[in-house]
Amino acid sequence: MPELPEDLLDAIELGDVKAIARHLEELAPHEIAEELTRLDAVESALVWRVLPKDEALEVFEELDAATQQLVLSGMRDQAFRDLLERMDPDDRVRLLGEAPASFVKKVLAGLSPKERKMTAELLGYPEETVGRYMSPEVIVTPETSTVSEVLATIRKKGKTAETVAVLAVVDKQRRFLGSVDLTELVMADEDTLVSAITDPDASTALVTDDVESAARLLQDTNHLALIVLDTDNRVVGIFTVDDAIDIIEEANSEDFARQAASLPSSGHYLSGKVFTLARLRIVWLLFLIVAATLTVSVLQLFESSLEKFTALALFMPMLIGTGGNVGAQAATSAVRAIALGEVRPQDVLRVAWRESRVGLLLGVGLGLVGMVAGWLVASWQVGATVAIAILVVCMWAATVGAVMPLAAKAMKIDPAVISAPMVTTLVDATGLIIYFLVAGLILG
Amino acid sequence: MPELPEDLLDAIELGDVKAIARHLEELAPHEIAEELTRLDAVESALVWRVLPKDEALEVFEELDAATQQLVLSGMRDQAFRDLLERMDPDDRVRLLGEAPASFVKKVLAGLSPKERKMTAELLGYPEETVGRYMSPEVIVTPETSTVSEVLATIRKKGKTAETVAVLAVVDKQRRFLGSVDLTELVMADEDTLVSAITDPDASTALVTDDVESAARLLQDTNHLALIVLDTDNRVVGIFTVDDAIDIIEEANSEDFARQAASLPSSGHYLSGKVFTLARLRIVWLLFLIVAATLTVSVLQLFESSLEKFTALALFMPMLIGTGGNVGAQAATSAVRAIALGEVRPQDVLRVAWRESRVGLLLGVGLGLVGMVAGWLVASWQVGATVAIAILVVCMWAATVGAVMPLAAKAMKIDPAVISAPMVTTLVDATGLIIYFLVAGLILG
Repeated sequence: MPELPEDLLDAIELGDVKAIARHLEELAPHEIAEELTRLDAVESALVWRVLPKDEALEVFEELDAATQQLVLSGMRDQAFRDLLERMDPDDRVRLLGEAPASFVKKVLAGLSPKERKMTAELLGYPEETVGRYMSPEVIVTPETSTVSEVLATIRKKGKTAETVAVLAVVDKQRRFLGSVDLTELVMADEDTLVSAITDPDASTALVTDDVESAARLLQDTNHLALIVLDTDNRVVGIFTVDDAIDIIEEANSEDFARQAASLPSSGHYLSGKVFTLARLRIVWLLFLIVAATLTVSVLQLFESSLEKFTALALFMPMLIGTGGNVGAQAATSAVRAIALGEVRPQDVLRVAWRESRVGLLLGVGLGLVGMVAGWLVASWQVGATVAIAILVVCMWAATVGAVMPLAAKAMKIDPAVISAPMVTTLVDATGLIIYFLVAGLILG
Repeated sequence: MPELPEDLLDAIELGDVKAIARHLEELAPHEIAEELTRLDAVESALVWRVLPKDEALEVFEELDAATQQLVLSGMRDQAFRDLLERMDPDDRVRLLGEAPASFVKKVLAGLSPKERKMTAELLGYPEETVGRYMSPEVIVTPETSTVSEVLATIRKKGKTAETVAVLAVVDKQRRFLGSVDLTELVMADEDTLVSAITDPDASTALVTDDVESAARLLQDTNHLALIVLDTDNRVVGIFTVDDAIDIIEEANSEDFARQAASLPSSGHYLSGKVFTLARLRIVWLLFLIVAATLTVSVLQLFESSLEKFTALALFMPMLIGTGGNVGAQAATSAVRAIALGEVRPQDVLRVAWRESRVGLLLGVGLGLVGMVAGWLVASWQVGATVAIAILVVCMWAATVGAVMPLAAKAMKIDPAVISAPMVTTLVDATGLIIYFLVAGLILG
């Protein structure tokens, strides 16, 4: 990290307006946005007062929705309306999507009729659909135009469009015929008809498509934007690669949170409230601790063995810890492979067969360590018990860990809900049963 | 999933060349690539024979490096050379970066002198730097050109360039002055000097910069490409947004793997060998099981208490499971927040203070469940022991889980190495100490 942000924070603490302005000038909008999330309401109000109007908009659009709301609530009415009026419609919808109804009302009331109509329309699409993330400001051109005519249109309307990297080509009924890249346009002869360079097989998205699928389609096809259509094949908007990156990143953050049994939170780590963080985390923890009472019941079943061989208790944490780790690895790889489209529910047998062999290999290596530990601390019988239990638990954990997310997917449940901790808890209880059964066979 | 891929797989199994060709026509290149990873060597050779030459290249560039090598090893020499010659230089370097030296030699020997020089140069940059991922085929224009002259250059050289979305503007010594977007060019007057629309503050990357930082810079600034410079400020290449998405995705996949204590693997889940998977997973597992012998030693210390109160053993898995889950949540959020640049090592006290309060809230909720379980199964004293131990362990686990990745970052270690299982193992051992100390106080 350069020292600049630190200097900025110092200047803000001192309330030195000139120094703040000087430091802001040297930072890019996304860097200023980054610093803003570290400030309290009073400090951030100071920064907004100093920021030039045009840059303020750019900085604002870089903030996450939670911080945007915080900033807006500290602004005077005129500044508030100005900022919202000049936002891109898709960014504005993202902000309003997470805001309380009273806030949405206030914003809509402050907008010009044109922007209000556009925003209300986008807000009408269900959450997580392309409609919520697209921009309606797409350049549309009839198939009968020449390249020079299209370039003239771009010159006229380009400033207000979300992007001119990709244009939609339509027939007289505004039905989509294909798309054309700006690059193709520039490289073509001026008198060429646009229909000659239109790609009729260009990937598109339906306005009600899942937005993550659309983002992954952009990623897979290496395009800069997708034209968005309604069910009548009419062009309604455009979905751009910069939004796609953010959506993929957000989906990954959600999967990370879920893999650790948290509910996903939107927004910056430092700007969330402690109580909110605890709320997002405790839901699954409560489920898991209740599920973990299963381990208490299992141990009650084998309480007499435990009383006879206290040494068995010594290895319980090591055994279930190892099983849990192996299960977590398998679950995490499976969840990730499903998210990237590498594995589908039909592959379940193939995956189970792979993972059971991986588990076997792991179990041999880890079982040896367990054998040595058991032998040294207690006896060779205990060593053998620990080793065999670890071997079986590893095979079981790897297989279960990988199959559970696939099963979830087959049942139309988000596979990421099958978190590593969930697999661990299941493996804890079943692993203890395996352990005591093996102990019964060997120790009698 | 549509039925098409299934039909394709059926046709391949039957060896029906006509049906294969028909199905391939209906699939996009990235869809064909997806199917190829599911085929064995013989089947995939069949697909390559049927694929038209131009499409073959597009499909090939969509494959991951491991599958690309597999495909190439099944090709005849002429087809092999043709394909490699026509690849984009940056894609070719990605492929060679993970290949054995003999393979690299064979490829370089087969290339034309021009392509060979370009490839060898890119291969000379250290792994994980921008140099390895950029394309040298960037369009460079002198500041003295007019817009119409630049557009003429694009028409002439655009076909071979990696992208024309962003162009580099240079002085007479080919030193970088700024960049200009194709959009700006198209919207400007034909006679305007390009220097008038050049953005001198455009973000750039140094050829030796870390490639993930460059990708995140593109993401943060919403640009389509970064101009890449050497230390003399000369333009050496361009780094595009489609590569940036893949790099961010790969970095996330690595973090996912590390959070589950696996070494990151490149490549498709189904195409990796079982033995390779086991090797990537066992490294950390061995470390963790050795660390887990600490729990055995801790329990040996308290063996006499365990013999007196076997009931204590019943709650061990639940207690350490809960502590592990809380620690895993905190560690995963911290790792993610660091990766996204939301938190830095200087924030450590702020983070510790936040997490200890989150842990307290979680501990109160989860401790109540533990209390009830302990009371029902054993006695109210055991219930109180379990409840207090859970409360303390939750605070400890959340704090340690979040602080460890920050400490790693401060020591220049990749924070993702502090995996959830590592935190869990640490919390297992310390949690047991807390449990038996509390038991000693309450049960005497």
